[in-house]
Amino acid sequence: MGLKAIEWLDDKLRILDQSKLPQEQSFIDLVNYQDVASAIKEMRIRGAPAIGIVAAYGIALGAQSIKAASKEEFLVQLNQVMQTLAATRPTAVNLFQAISRMKEAAIGDSVPETKEALAAEAKQIHSEEAEATKRLSYLGAELIQDGFTILTHCNAGPLATAGYGTALGVIKAAKEQGKRISVIATETRPLLQGARLTAWELQQEGIPVTLITDSMAGYFLRQGKINCVIVGADRIAANGDVANKIGTYTLAVLAKENSVPFYVAAPISTVDISLPCGAGIPIEERNPEEVTHIRGIHIAPEGIGVANPAFDITPHGYVSAIITEKGIMKEPYEKGFRCN
Amino acid sequence: MGLKAIEWLDDKLRILDQSKLPQEQSFIDLVNYQDVASAIKEMRIRGAPAIGIVAAYGIALGAQSIKAASKEEFLVQLNQVMQTLAATRPTAVNLFQAISRMKEAAIGDSVPETKEALAAEAKQIHSEEAEATKRLSYLGAELIQDGFTILTHCNAGPLATAGYGTALGVIKAAKEQGKRISVIATETRPLLQGARLTAWELQQEGIPVTLITDSMAGYFLRQGKINCVIVGADRIAANGDVANKIGTYTLAVLAKENSVPFYVAAPISTVDISLPCGAGIPIEERNPEEVTHIRGIHIAPEGIGVANPAFDITPHGYVSAIITEKGIMKEPYEKGFRCN
Repeated sequence: MGLKAIEWLDDKLRILDQSKLPQEQSFIDLVNYQDVASAIKEMRIRGAPAIGIVAAYGIALGAQSIKAASKEEFLVQLNQVMQTLAATRPTAVNLFQAISRMKEAAIGDSVPETKEALAAEAKQIHSEEAEATKRLSYLGAELIQDGFTILTHCNAGPLATAGYGTALGVIKAAKEQGKRISVIATETRPLLQGARLTAWELQQEGIPVTLITDSMAGYFLRQGKINCVIVGADRIAANGDVANKIGTYTLAVLAKENSVPFYVAAPISTVDISLPCGAGIPIEERNPEEVTHIRGIHIAPEGIGVANPAFDITPHGYVSAIITEKGIMKEPYEKGFRCN
Repeated sequence: MGLKAIEWLDDKLRILDQSKLPQEQSFIDLVNYQDVASAIKEMRIRGAPAIGIVAAYGIALGAQSIKAASKEEFLVQLNQVMQTLAATRPTAVNLFQAISRMKEAAIGDSVPETKEALAAEAKQIHSEEAEATKRLSYLGAELIQDGFTILTHCNAGPLATAGYGTALGVIKAAKEQGKRISVIATETRPLLQGARLTAWELQQEGIPVTLITDSMAGYFLRQGKINCVIVGADRIAANGDVANKIGTYTLAVLAKENSVPFYVAAPISTVDISLPCGAGIPIEERNPEEVTHIRGIHIAPEGIGVANPAFDITPHGYVSAIITEKGIMKEPYEKGFRCN
């Protein structure tokens, strides 16, 4: 992809505004950590790995603006920056892992040295994540055979990862290996990341893609037209339970019912080894207007009750394999995660 | 509901334009059979029972306009009217059953008598269907317990049936019996009949309703928050395989996986006893723009591939019961259908 999802410009962070794609390709300069927090909340930047990277840069930006006489005072203010960023979105663990790494990186002797160390750590997180998604994509491509039709949900490509992609990375790597691949992409209501981002990214990669509504996936799985399902993840518990975009659990159940492999592709940074199972993963409930309105158009009656959970949990029993940069993991997942 | 979905005014048919709801409540007068055919194709009127009723009135209108010297000439032209209406939408069998009944009703000695007989038959179909949906609703309400939360998909209320409703009829009847019922309604992409019509009809009935995207149904079924699923049907094969709005099969699989009963409510006119199983039911493929655009807004990249099957088949093994005006049918369905 020619467009950079995230670009660090030393005194600001430039992001592609994903909420406007594909009709409009516009960039926003985030000049302070509050801007970064708003961009994450409003999903101008989204995708678990990308959120982690942007939060790290947000902390680096926040650190730059702190005017503190002592390291102690600096750390107090830095903690507030981190808390603001931690409060943006609850489900993707990459956010909290990035914040935790930034906390550990605040180790310079002086305030200026610490500011530099934080900027360096943010860049390091970015390059490590980009490397991880590239590596897992090539490992995962071994699961994909020539001629496969792959179903994916939401968006787990370069935009979501500020790297090579996870689910779409595997698809891209398989194509680079000369395999003929086609993709069926769900539109992914409410925010249409599949229709707006995945369809657009695949189109740019020259990979044939068919867009469907979320409700059509079962029809195509039952017809035997899909060889495997690949999705990304927002948080994976130690036992392999997967939090991902709402609708993922449904696809996993449909895949199992129709004997189609269901793969999750995610960097190890998405694994939350502290949680024994998915029940501990917080599920973000977002604004009802995302359901009652589509691109600003009101589609429902006034005053209607709405639920808008942004993620669901797919129990590990439905997951055929988890593709990470450390290898393709299978049951028992915890053993694989801990050995790597 | 105060608004009449279909009203026969002897020389024209007045329908509520369902494509504009709920933001706009406007009626259209259909003055000839071509108008009726267009209204069905464009889904200004939809829902299997309603389509059958409207097609019958369309034939009555078409008959009125025929200027024929002889009964033979009249029947030739009437056949063309019927063919035009039969070509509007392929899946709902009520359309073909209504046309078949109208063909048999063209038995007057003279042309004027035959025209009268056709109008009378259309009115008869309308009143029989209204009676059938009311009866099946009260029969089905026995399956609903006080305090139930019911998941429904698409729209199977008064609008879809020009009567009491099928899936929503059962819900309304349960409420009339004093049971406290709440409903979770899927928005039903692409055309949003759930968000636009079901949510609106339930709101008007004073039945608590929570609107969700199609992708959220699995989340709520897995949480144990749903006591049963009820949907309508567009065509039911002799073995109980059910064609209904795209996404129904997915809900049936999710219901089975979570041990939640899955009910189909439909008048006997929706059963196509000539088809041994669902594989013979034609699935309508509709305009790709229904997927790439929502209420006129383009949501996908230009030139993207799209699939838009409007229905899917739920195999009878997923169906807990089929609620008809002749009784609540269970496996083996064919026996129940043939005995009634």
